[in-house]
Amino acid sequence: MAPSACAACRSQRKKCSDECLLAPHFPSDDLQKFALVQKVYGFNNVLKMLKDVKAEQRADVVKSLVYEATARMEDPVYGCTREIHQLQKRIAEQESKLAAYP
Amino acid sequence: MAPSACAACRSQRKKCSDECLLAPHFPSDDLQKFALVQKVYGFNNVLKMLKDVKAEQRADVVKSLVYEATARMEDPVYGCTREIHQLQKRIAEQESKLAAYP
Repeated sequence: MAPSACAACRSQRKKCSDECLLAPHFPSDDLQKFALVQKVYGFNNVLKMLKDVKAEQRADVVKSLVYEATARMEDPVYGCTREIHQLQKRIAEQESKLAAYP
Repeated sequence: MAPSACAACRSQRKKCSDECLLAPHFPSDDLQKFALVQKVYGFNNVLKMLKDVKAEQRADVVKSLVYEATARMEDPVYGCTREIHQLQKRIAEQESKLAAYP
């Protein structure tokens, strides 16, 4: 394992190369970020989800995976669907208020 | 493999028992439902997420995982965070409208 292996390669105790697709998104100084998505999706699935999109989309994939994994850790039952329900409820409340105006 | 093995056990080509934790949620007549969550989270992670909660919460875990996995299949970059952003945008628009009233 190179001293500079990315957080993802470190989790697998393997060498990290210049071509490592995970390295730009999971730097070695933030092990927690990869540990989080790995716990929810698994190493291979994270890698596959990044491989399946264009290079310029990968940062957004990582951001959304981190967001969803964080929500799943905070709420193991509903994950980020809890937030979706809360937002939908708020929209319905606002709609009722707006309906009261001409 | 028993002919009645649940969709999850079928995916692993293994026997399904009366104690199978996945069977109540992934019946053998709906292979697609398990295939979907397996593709995003992997077999072991789905099993672990169900094990980690109380029995009466498992149906809701499955529902939220299916929801999030469906969103990830439809939008491999943003998954269900796209819906969250759209809902937040709508709330902001409604707030602007409400602010115009006394």
